[in-house]
Amino acid sequence: MKQSQLFTKTLRDAPKDEVSLNAQLLIRAGYADKLMAGVYTLLPLGLRVMKKIENIIREEINAIGGQELYMPTLNPKENWEKTGRWESLDSLITLGFDEEKNMALAPTHEEIISPLAKKFISSYKDLPFSAYHFQNKFRKEKRAKSGLLRGREFIMKDLYSFHTDQEDLDVFYEKATEAYRKIFDRSGIGEKTYLTFASGGSFSKYSHEFQALTDAGEDLIYICEKCSVAVNREIIEDVDHKCTQCGKGNLKEAKAVEVGNIFKLGTKYSKPFNLIYTDKEGKENDIIMGCYGIGLQRLMGTIVEVSHDEKGIIWPESVAPFKVHLISLQKDKETEKIYANLVKAGIEVLYDDRDTSAGEKFADSDLIGIPYRLVVSKKSLDGGGVEIKKRGDNTSKIIPVKDIKNELK
Amino acid sequence: MKQSQLFTKTLRDAPKDEVSLNAQLLIRAGYADKLMAGVYTLLPLGLRVMKKIENIIREEINAIGGQELYMPTLNPKENWEKTGRWESLDSLITLGFDEEKNMALAPTHEEIISPLAKKFISSYKDLPFSAYHFQNKFRKEKRAKSGLLRGREFIMKDLYSFHTDQEDLDVFYEKATEAYRKIFDRSGIGEKTYLTFASGGSFSKYSHEFQALTDAGEDLIYICEKCSVAVNREIIEDVDHKCTQCGKGNLKEAKAVEVGNIFKLGTKYSKPFNLIYTDKEGKENDIIMGCYGIGLQRLMGTIVEVSHDEKGIIWPESVAPFKVHLISLQKDKETEKIYANLVKAGIEVLYDDRDTSAGEKFADSDLIGIPYRLVVSKKSLDGGGVEIKKRGDNTSKIIPVKDIKNELK
Repeated sequence: MKQSQLFTKTLRDAPKDEVSLNAQLLIRAGYADKLMAGVYTLLPLGLRVMKKIENIIREEINAIGGQELYMPTLNPKENWEKTGRWESLDSLITLGFDEEKNMALAPTHEEIISPLAKKFISSYKDLPFSAYHFQNKFRKEKRAKSGLLRGREFIMKDLYSFHTDQEDLDVFYEKATEAYRKIFDRSGIGEKTYLTFASGGSFSKYSHEFQALTDAGEDLIYICEKCSVAVNREIIEDVDHKCTQCGKGNLKEAKAVEVGNIFKLGTKYSKPFNLIYTDKEGKENDIIMGCYGIGLQRLMGTIVEVSHDEKGIIWPESVAPFKVHLISLQKDKETEKIYANLVKAGIEVLYDDRDTSAGEKFADSDLIGIPYRLVVSKKSLDGGGVEIKKRGDNTSKIIPVKDIKNELK
Repeated sequence: MKQSQLFTKTLRDAPKDEVSLNAQLLIRAGYADKLMAGVYTLLPLGLRVMKKIENIIREEINAIGGQELYMPTLNPKENWEKTGRWESLDSLITLGFDEEKNMALAPTHEEIISPLAKKFISSYKDLPFSAYHFQNKFRKEKRAKSGLLRGREFIMKDLYSFHTDQEDLDVFYEKATEAYRKIFDRSGIGEKTYLTFASGGSFSKYSHEFQALTDAGEDLIYICEKCSVAVNREIIEDVDHKCTQCGKGNLKEAKAVEVGNIFKLGTKYSKPFNLIYTDKEGKENDIIMGCYGIGLQRLMGTIVEVSHDEKGIIWPESVAPFKVHLISLQKDKETEKIYANLVKAGIEVLYDDRDTSAGEKFADSDLIGIPYRLVVSKKSLDGGGVEIKKRGDNTSKIIPVKDIKNELK
């Protein structure tokens, strides 16, 4: 894409009321716009990143058999009353067409998928299965000061699984854990992300969070470096400040963001909706459920918190809006040809063809954070080709034009 | 995909309160579930159709230069007050975290994109541009009895264009008209869809709707068969019951659904947000806007209304959830091999591998409405291969297994 045609621009300053670093960088670089506290527009560059994150998640959830559907945002009060969460969930946004509030904006979808499953599932032969969706979610956040890490409106991937018994849930839960591990690895934050033990509720001793280390995190976790797992602050007293895996003490405290969570629900949401199945002996049993969430804006914001420098964002290649930032310091046919060839080769390239100074182009390129910068200038052409530099590296090199494609492989 | 693994099933009956044919068929066939009046879940099969519709729209809007972004659902009151629509728009759903209502659920996004554009656009050099998004929209529909044709929650594609002057808008408006024509052609309802003249507001004599003929339609249009255009009931008196193109009378009255609309907004939404640009002479002018909408569930529901028979849905190939419905009447290696080969060839196939009767499989297949039905049975194998039948055709034929791929091309 030609940068001159992009309707957004980089901005000198983020809004004064924006205190979080991820939002400041995303707004200044032209990825997001702040509509109000906790509510952001994804601009064309930002949507490209979001779609890449979404596709990574979709591929990994499809790989463990998840079936994608799309459940509504507007929910009837009665579903939320059945589980008691109409009253108990403080963050639930309620509304009505008239004065009476008889609907909720869904912050999660157990109250919808459980009665939906009941319409189709009756026998052990119908189990197990899992289904997920990407959907806008809403939370009554009184203070929303963490940028994209904690929104009032945000896209969630919610996966729900349905099982005949605990053993079957355990098997799927393991698969989901592996899928989550792959998602965070592929998103470029795998090394910073710890499987973290958290409180499990009545059905299971522990639930698990995936916590990514960053000073922007609102959570505190305690890392066991031997096992590469962590314990959430919530339960650190209960486990006597020891690793839940090896029993070792001396855990390392660190700030982190919860980028995903997985939970064995048991019968918590199947009971209120009478979600049962008939087993081989003809006996009726409650269906056992699990749930598995990832907030997409939160993941995007976390990647920025984890991967940036003083000049701007450093996107992992897998989620970058483009692979290559082609910068021309002299409008010429040579750059146009390189651009056309990259497009033809299926390489995603943002081509800075604007009439602006070299300094501004370089500063914008660092701010935007595309993995590879290719500069075409009189100097580079005299030197035998184009200058290539990886974002985040200090050194660049000149390579012949014919080698560009190989270099980018 | 193997049908035995799909968690949804066909249903004998739609909910008793569901009076619309499109929703009855979509629910019975396992495409949609009704959560409440005007609010539907898209089940895995339904989401596949929706994604195809979305991709057709995306390709055609990208082709005319639209830049995709993603604007929020939750909108601040002040934006809607600036245009007066906080008070005037009856269908606007308002809400608040406390007692005070200070937010709206967006039914359309002029109030968001206009101030957004102001942040980036200042000079004639920044114009023209157009931007669009797919997003859930919300309307306070008191009665929602038309199934997917009129929802309280639904996905819209909204495109907005920004111009220096009327002439430039006119050029883009023509391009958008052509893009819409292609979208409805590709969705399989082109022949039934008329460009329809409607009231234009203060900036333009007419706006235009795309109206698809069906008895389920809530609109009345008057068709000029010579020009292949129509006039909306709204303005039929104003144009003296004559074609706006050729002036001929004797227009044919018909019921129709509005599947798209395009509108020259002029300065209606740029003025309240002081959205201006500086021209070549350094003079400030109001930016001229256009807007272009398509409701995706409505388009999906319209396709069903237009294309079905007494047995079920007949999907156009372009939006069908799968291209082929492979039905095995005897579990054997032959069918498994055919299935594997189709998948390998990149042909989308739903494979009915369920342990159920031939009659039920055929009835379900007609209801679900996948374009090509392939039946593997002892009879077909004895006859030299597999039986192929187009949904909606009365005749089938036997073709050798090796010819399947060619036949489907």
